[in-house]
Amino acid sequence: MDDNEPYWLFGLHSVRAALANPRRTIHRFVATPNATRRLEPLPRPMEPEKIDVRALNRLVGADAVHQGAALYVSPLPGRDIEDLADARFVLCLDHITDPHNVGAILRSAAAFGVDAVVVTRRHSASETGVLAKSASGALDLVDIAVVTNLTRAVEELKGFGFRVAALDSEAAVPLGTLEPADRWAFVLGAEGKGVRPGVAAACDVTAAIEVPGALASLNVSNAAAITLYAATNSLLKPR
Amino acid sequence: MDDNEPYWLFGLHSVRAALANPRRTIHRFVATPNATRRLEPLPRPMEPEKIDVRALNRLVGADAVHQGAALYVSPLPGRDIEDLADARFVLCLDHITDPHNVGAILRSAAAFGVDAVVVTRRHSASETGVLAKSASGALDLVDIAVVTNLTRAVEELKGFGFRVAALDSEAAVPLGTLEPADRWAFVLGAEGKGVRPGVAAACDVTAAIEVPGALASLNVSNAAAITLYAATNSLLKPR
Repeated sequence: MDDNEPYWLFGLHSVRAALANPRRTIHRFVATPNATRRLEPLPRPMEPEKIDVRALNRLVGADAVHQGAALYVSPLPGRDIEDLADARFVLCLDHITDPHNVGAILRSAAAFGVDAVVVTRRHSASETGVLAKSASGALDLVDIAVVTNLTRAVEELKGFGFRVAALDSEAAVPLGTLEPADRWAFVLGAEGKGVRPGVAAACDVTAAIEVPGALASLNVSNAAAITLYAATNSLLKPR
Repeated sequence: MDDNEPYWLFGLHSVRAALANPRRTIHRFVATPNATRRLEPLPRPMEPEKIDVRALNRLVGADAVHQGAALYVSPLPGRDIEDLADARFVLCLDHITDPHNVGAILRSAAAFGVDAVVVTRRHSASETGVLAKSASGALDLVDIAVVTNLTRAVEELKGFGFRVAALDSEAAVPLGTLEPADRWAFVLGAEGKGVRPGVAAACDVTAAIEVPGALASLNVSNAAAITLYAATNSLLKPR
């Protein structure tokens, strides 16, 4: 999440959320007449350039589900870890590179009211149209903090008073048995690799989503969704 | 899920699970020497045809993440709803057509030990290589019942003693507040459309996954994962 190159963001949810985000720099706005009607009232006074579907296919790629609207945007400026000193609910992604998974995770993060998602500068999914589409608008709703060293970020979060749990399907402690706390950060790793040992060692606890069935591992965005559900339902103390 | 045409199933997890499934009819088995080593010991005494990566790309499509191995298989025979008379944990998918989502849902279903997934004969994702890859082997681990009429299937499940809940993000009853029961079936609908009204009306209750954040709706496979987690952790009475 470190490229500053503008890219095409597409799909009605993503376009609407980006238009509504004052922090989002928009260089171009193209839409079919039909998509323009579906976007109205426009959340930012910016007239779309009329475009037809074929021209839009050429612009964003024929397999992009653009729904008739696209924005040429700059990636959002990331937050710093220091900005999370007053946050209470944080998700950290350790080297998760699949843009569909990261997009889906951002979507769940927005749904469950996560304060920020922390990602690493390298070995993360870049902010692209595919990620934005999977996020269904969440890219413009969730704060993202980009860090160079996730182990150090975990230490900083602990310094702010967070309790930090790494998720690992082989951990002995079930997620649902963690003690409620005022502030939680959860760390998820890439599928197959998991959270890196150095990062996990910096966390307060390593916990597993218990799965009683024949397959031991969940898709990472599904694991994230379950973690966020468990956090909001039982792990985060009511304010 | 009604086509009987053979198709290419690929990826190490999917290939291994299909080889291990005695109900799975396999017409061809191709693998690179490296993938063959990674699959050993082979769960079925079937010698792979040696193939190189380029030839495999041509066979299954260059954008398929085949990991060096593929099987040409027939779709699995579906179960009948009558076979679920003794089941206790069922997931019903109402017109969910995205193969990535259905694959991810099957994977979570296998992880959480769901007895069967019920799908409609029409307007469902077909059993394809993409679905099988997203399922990461789960296609060969979870029973699938294919029904013509999901409303009638819900009625039959209730007749067997199931309590049946439809998920709807706008429902007033939070998922986590449902009373525990001995047998549960959950019905999920397609994103945007939700469970069809006739199907929802046949269910005992309509429940929502409560999301406190800025986005109201979850990706459907994430909603399924949360539902299965809530079911195994609090809604299904221990046997």
